[in-house]
Amino acid sequence: MPVPDGLGAQLREPLFDRIALIGMGLIGSSLARVCRRKGLAREIIAADSSAQVRAEVGGLGLADQVAEKLATAVEGADLVILCVPVGAMGPVAQEIAPYLLPGAILSDVGSVKTAIIKAVTPHLPGTVDFVPAHPVAGTEQSGPAAGFATLFLNRWSIVTPPAGTNPQAVARLASFWQGAGANVEVMDAAHHDLVLAITSHVPHLIAYNIVGTAADLEQVTQLEVIKFSAGGFRDFTRIAASDPVMWRDIFLNNKEAVLETLGRFNEDLSALQRMIRNGDGKALFDLFTRTRTIRRGIIEQGQETSAPDFGRRAGET
Amino acid sequence: MPVPDGLGAQLREPLFDRIALIGMGLIGSSLARVCRRKGLAREIIAADSSAQVRAEVGGLGLADQVAEKLATAVEGADLVILCVPVGAMGPVAQEIAPYLLPGAILSDVGSVKTAIIKAVTPHLPGTVDFVPAHPVAGTEQSGPAAGFATLFLNRWSIVTPPAGTNPQAVARLASFWQGAGANVEVMDAAHHDLVLAITSHVPHLIAYNIVGTAADLEQVTQLEVIKFSAGGFRDFTRIAASDPVMWRDIFLNNKEAVLETLGRFNEDLSALQRMIRNGDGKALFDLFTRTRTIRRGIIEQGQETSAPDFGRRAGET
Repeated sequence: MPVPDGLGAQLREPLFDRIALIGMGLIGSSLARVCRRKGLAREIIAADSSAQVRAEVGGLGLADQVAEKLATAVEGADLVILCVPVGAMGPVAQEIAPYLLPGAILSDVGSVKTAIIKAVTPHLPGTVDFVPAHPVAGTEQSGPAAGFATLFLNRWSIVTPPAGTNPQAVARLASFWQGAGANVEVMDAAHHDLVLAITSHVPHLIAYNIVGTAADLEQVTQLEVIKFSAGGFRDFTRIAASDPVMWRDIFLNNKEAVLETLGRFNEDLSALQRMIRNGDGKALFDLFTRTRTIRRGIIEQGQETSAPDFGRRAGET
Repeated sequence: MPVPDGLGAQLREPLFDRIALIGMGLIGSSLARVCRRKGLAREIIAADSSAQVRAEVGGLGLADQVAEKLATAVEGADLVILCVPVGAMGPVAQEIAPYLLPGAILSDVGSVKTAIIKAVTPHLPGTVDFVPAHPVAGTEQSGPAAGFATLFLNRWSIVTPPAGTNPQAVARLASFWQGAGANVEVMDAAHHDLVLAITSHVPHLIAYNIVGTAADLEQVTQLEVIKFSAGGFRDFTRIAASDPVMWRDIFLNNKEAVLETLGRFNEDLSALQRMIRNGDGKALFDLFTRTRTIRRGIIEQGQETSAPDFGRRAGET
């Protein structure tokens, strides 16, 4: 009997024979879990460069086989998904390229797409279909123990095939993400990078920034910041607790879209600053009223809980 | 038998004979609920300028009496708490001043303290003790239906008595907040305004700002912003869905501390922008690592849940 977790029943037939997941952090380990839970692949091979992560994955029983060597991991795999930080995509692609099965689909889960396509494509043989993708899902936690099978449920996975990509490979990868519970959107890589700059990268940047500012203030102690964080600050610290390597690579590899969006943010912030300095209550009220409607849209689209304070309650913390 | 909600048993003796709550939004209505739940006052009088809110409060049975006229509400009350937006504190204090019981304690729950002390104090007779306070607690929702009795549980209530305030009145108000489940900290009003600028006011400002920026981008549609918000943006929309009147008044009345803190935020953001432009991965990694420790402190101090993504799960949204 299926577990009532919203993922539904197992597939009758696996979509892939053997899936190789390279990198077993939050995303890779969640993929392993949902692959097994839904029967998306007949066999799951996991690889990671860290011996500690490999031991954890083995202990958790997340894969049929845990490989140290990437050549071993991808051998005979008809789907290979790179779940490593953005900066590692190119080198990993170069390393596995000679061992990829002809006809295999290669994909990734990176949060930027143009830079990854540029870094990965030159290494690949013509016998392999590269279909880049980005599941817009995650938590602030890292590592294989932090993953869970429903991470992608009702979230969006954005597939960004370069011009000329085999449409059948795109369709198979889309089916894979739908099998994992996600909705699929196909998008141009450059547009993806711009959309994610505003919905993810710049929000992370300003969260990291304000948490840094708070840590450096002379007139307010760190203990005060911590004690009185329930006024709003603590929400920012969740985002600013995300994996540092992953986020360093995102900013280094989506530089243009991030800087452009940040420029707009700064212009708007200057205007807001002037409203406060000039005591323009009407303009403040109008902005604060307008922003409410966006949240309503997010809740209606099923991308957020409507419970106040995300359903957090003092008694539960 | 007490409800197992973390608030503990009712007091044997009420701390106050009659409490008048002026303004029955999220905070006022939560206070009414915890007053009754814990037996903090023998009688609860609620007042609100909106007929609709008064009807809601009556329907929810939150008070022993719902008053339209402020003079009626404060009559005979030995504790009066102003739960109105910051900008309304002065006018309300002026209106109730002639009717306050000699020996009564007057308090408030406003998120800025210096401006409120300046606006309220001139109207008060010498027979009344004014003890300003600020419970650092809330959600993005508004109105009497949004309140709940455990809102203040394990949160901090900051009491900011001006020099010369009757220490017995301060102690009684501290007991009241402790009875409501809160921890109490006594602080200078100016320092409070600086602490809250970084822990609450500027975070709200930049959340309002980025949600506004996202709404105005030409290259990214509003639907895209909504669909792909799970990458981080949606957390900001929660904060940017807070009550517009309340927040307009906060920024108009804590102008100096907000602009000063915002100046620091902007300096830090310029430095971060340069790190990205220069591709300085080491500096980015160092900042992103440092900010993780602050969240750990907030969780250890019981001001936040340690559950990933605040305990949100796709299946529950």
